[in-house]
Amino acid sequence: MMKLMPTRSIAPGPRDERGVLAGRIVAAARQEFAEHGWAGTTIRAVARAADVDPGLVYHYFGSKEGLLDAATNPPQQWLDNVAKVWTTPIAGLGAALLKLLLASWADDEVGPTLRAILQTAAHEPATREKLRRVVEGSLMGVSELGGDERDRLIRSGLISSQMMGFALMRYVWKIEPIASMTEDEAIAAISPNLQHYVDGDLSAGQSAG
Amino acid sequence: MMKLMPTRSIAPGPRDERGVLAGRIVAAARQEFAEHGWAGTTIRAVARAADVDPGLVYHYFGSKEGLLDAATNPPQQWLDNVAKVWTTPIAGLGAALLKLLLASWADDEVGPTLRAILQTAAHEPATREKLRRVVEGSLMGVSELGGDERDRLIRSGLISSQMMGFALMRYVWKIEPIASMTEDEAIAAISPNLQHYVDGDLSAGQSAG
Repeated sequence: MMKLMPTRSIAPGPRDERGVLAGRIVAAARQEFAEHGWAGTTIRAVARAADVDPGLVYHYFGSKEGLLDAATNPPQQWLDNVAKVWTTPIAGLGAALLKLLLASWADDEVGPTLRAILQTAAHEPATREKLRRVVEGSLMGVSELGGDERDRLIRSGLISSQMMGFALMRYVWKIEPIASMTEDEAIAAISPNLQHYVDGDLSAGQSAG
Repeated sequence: MMKLMPTRSIAPGPRDERGVLAGRIVAAARQEFAEHGWAGTTIRAVARAADVDPGLVYHYFGSKEGLLDAATNPPQQWLDNVAKVWTTPIAGLGAALLKLLLASWADDEVGPTLRAILQTAAHEPATREKLRRVVEGSLMGVSELGGDERDRLIRSGLISSQMMGFALMRYVWKIEPIASMTEDEAIAAISPNLQHYVDGDLSAGQSAG
């Protein structure tokens, strides 16, 4: 399994009980929110899955809103990785973005976070706002694309649309054979399309008939 | 607003009170499921939105499951339209598919149905199954694509991934500037990518490094 960052067990930082328990609660919350959505998730179920007292969840996260926020915050190191990929030379950006996507979903911490974001964005305005910020800030954050600000945002928005649709079909809805394509197959098939959005002529397609 | 089919007010069929009320309930259910998801939707709220007695909802649809099923069933005429688009000559298929998507979401009945499917598929296994059937049966139903069965399914799966990612960003999450691109802009920018999945060389992209 690909790693984008150290797992919790070897991560630096506080190794005290609070850090361990909070991490366990957040991991359980990601899973519960992804499976059951905002309305279908209870603090009690998260506490049970994390094998802690519900009172501890409130103590650490304050409320269900606070817990969702923690469960859907992408790790800073991942955001840094995303920003770094955007510095790839333009000609290789399409493939670099797809490799980032594949590595992100395979990561033990980032994958469940992305899943929780996509699954709760449907009905939870706060998560949808977070998704919008991630897309606009990180995925759409490259200044080298396109001619003007709007063109740049359209290009990175279209890139996001392909990457999120692929991630939903492969990892969330698990629709075959997209779910079981090899990574090399996915990179070979999809990278040219991402590259078209990066530096292709976006006015060249057939017009409305 | 584009129309794929007649609106209810001029549709043929029973004009009796039962048909009118059932249609009103289904329309309200689509809206409620799309807004609040499976767990967040109640029969009572749907009845209130449709201005009918909750007992009538149970009488017509049996259960919340039955109501979700009715709310997420694509109209037969739309499924026929989808099948017809797949008979477009290969060279124009990418643009035809994107035009179908734009017309579908603009349709007064199909648009809310697609929205309800995408919004409840996250957490409702029955809807996810329906989504899988729609994708595999309708969107992936073209026999002219690709060399063998697996190649054909990969091509139509990738087409679906782009179309659903774009629909989510434009119509569900409403992320700008994707949400406000003109239809001609969208067709010009995205059709070539759909066409690449239709008849392009899917092994030509950069391999994993």
